[in-house]
Amino acid sequence: MDLNYEMNHRAKVLNTQLDDFLNKGSPKILYDAARHLPFAGGKRLRPCMAMVSCESVGGDVKNVIFFAIALELIHNFTLVHDDIMDKSKLRRNMPTVHVKFGEPTAINAGDLLFTKAFEAMHELLIEPHIFKKLEYGLVKCIKDICEGQQMDMDFENRIDVMEEEYLEMIRKKTAVFFRLATEGGAILSDANLDQINALGNYGELLGLAFQIHDDFLDMSSDEDTLGKDIGNDIRNGKKTLIAVRSLNKAEGEYKRSLHDIFGNKFATESDVKKVYDIFQDLNSVEYARQKALYYCEKAKKSLDILDESKAKQILIEIADYSIKREN
Amino acid sequence: MDLNYEMNHRAKVLNTQLDDFLNKGSPKILYDAARHLPFAGGKRLRPCMAMVSCESVGGDVKNVIFFAIALELIHNFTLVHDDIMDKSKLRRNMPTVHVKFGEPTAINAGDLLFTKAFEAMHELLIEPHIFKKLEYGLVKCIKDICEGQQMDMDFENRIDVMEEEYLEMIRKKTAVFFRLATEGGAILSDANLDQINALGNYGELLGLAFQIHDDFLDMSSDEDTLGKDIGNDIRNGKKTLIAVRSLNKAEGEYKRSLHDIFGNKFATESDVKKVYDIFQDLNSVEYARQKALYYCEKAKKSLDILDESKAKQILIEIADYSIKREN
Repeated sequence: MDLNYEMNHRAKVLNTQLDDFLNKGSPKILYDAARHLPFAGGKRLRPCMAMVSCESVGGDVKNVIFFAIALELIHNFTLVHDDIMDKSKLRRNMPTVHVKFGEPTAINAGDLLFTKAFEAMHELLIEPHIFKKLEYGLVKCIKDICEGQQMDMDFENRIDVMEEEYLEMIRKKTAVFFRLATEGGAILSDANLDQINALGNYGELLGLAFQIHDDFLDMSSDEDTLGKDIGNDIRNGKKTLIAVRSLNKAEGEYKRSLHDIFGNKFATESDVKKVYDIFQDLNSVEYARQKALYYCEKAKKSLDILDESKAKQILIEIADYSIKREN
Repeated sequence: MDLNYEMNHRAKVLNTQLDDFLNKGSPKILYDAARHLPFAGGKRLRPCMAMVSCESVGGDVKNVIFFAIALELIHNFTLVHDDIMDKSKLRRNMPTVHVKFGEPTAINAGDLLFTKAFEAMHELLIEPHIFKKLEYGLVKCIKDICEGQQMDMDFENRIDVMEEEYLEMIRKKTAVFFRLATEGGAILSDANLDQINALGNYGELLGLAFQIHDDFLDMSSDEDTLGKDIGNDIRNGKKTLIAVRSLNKAEGEYKRSLHDIFGNKFATESDVKKVYDIFQDLNSVEYARQKALYYCEKAKKSLDILDESKAKQILIEIADYSIKREN
């Protein structure tokens, strides 16, 4: 099975509807800003997961499209605002929304994407009580994302972050939203409770693996591959699992170097390289790789109760992909 | 009847519940930032309007509280983000959220308030189909607010804004939200369609009057009274009704002066005074006052179909107050 083909096929279906849904509005500049990031690429991973989750329990993917659109809009809203908060200049190899349109319009465009996500939910042809349940899931997720984002920012000013705190942060910031994608896809297919839970657990565990992998992509790729400012994470003192473990493990010379350089906005290229070497020497990069692998395997395992199907196979391959991808 | 007493009484009921609802959460800094503006004062006008609207058609105000909380949270979310967009330093005589907590946390706190509003809706004890209808109203309103805010910002770079465009802007940015408050209060009281429409129209017309009045408060009060940077609107080229009419009316010397000073970030105190004098000479301040009065009267008139009651009387007095208030 060709995962790329399966993903692209579903992404295309989604993009057509998303393009239409986000196309009608004025002032033009606001909608241009709101469309900038969603149409600058993106793998549509969360929408695809919702769609395939639905298929894996025998549902009709048509019933899920506008839920998938809501997920993608929320994801993009958080990216637009996060990029302002983090002062990121590049995303998906393009200027970020606030760089292209200015900060005020970018804040507003993020708010609009947030709103449009909730509007998309009303396009779903479902019973009001299902709507209410699913909408509540979305609300809870966004609250978690806000809290997770704040933890992430607060962590930048701390050097004593524990691994448990890190995991709670990425659970809120990333994993619960993946859970919603797969859980929602199942709910919209009239799946039974066991199936909903299995797919939800798969989503959350995959989200953890995905985020841990994401964190060290910045460490192991050049700007072209990733479309992000390289070394940013080190200069900002971003508490990735690699960093958290290294800070907790380091002693002596290593400890002093990390405390000097890590989180230093003015760190040079060679400083960044030095920190990276320490991460390697402490075996933290491999440690994080193993953790990502662990969650990935647990994610796949939770699908055991589902009948075999092409959709189930795609979910398994998405899990593998999430810790192998290079961007 | 003592309007102040009636408003304060209802605001107190609301504040107790709001305090409780916005109190449980971590990280603390995020919730502190989210609570900063809602508890820096505020008249709770929108919540009060929803509550009194409910009472005016015989409803029980208890059923409306969490809808009123949702309205207040959305209102505060828009203020937190608008203050960042407008670079405002003061609000309700206090430092704005981004001044006190920094911009990243302020953006995130605004997003949290947005989310908490939708969470509050789930505290309402109503049928799912009513929930869905009311939640859709909220979504549509926020979309309008985003679009209205963008129009407002875009207008700052234009000198040819027509009065019709101005009215459309304040309708979206302010009036539709007032409509939702009164319409929602009525919907939650099982009011009939005529009552819902009458109260909705009242809200929207009042919103127009309120915003027109708001626009010239900045022109006629000192910083202490209003808690805003004075002259900001003139230096930012803000298209209030007074400004729009003046720019459309001015000729010769006046026109040149307005084009030179209005929207000039570096305008001196005496420049600001000069522009204000031109506004007065062209009779635009009085023109705006008359427009606000016109919408206020129309708002009151739309209540005619309602039975007489204390609540109806409060709504009438709120309308009068909205164009007489000094902050």
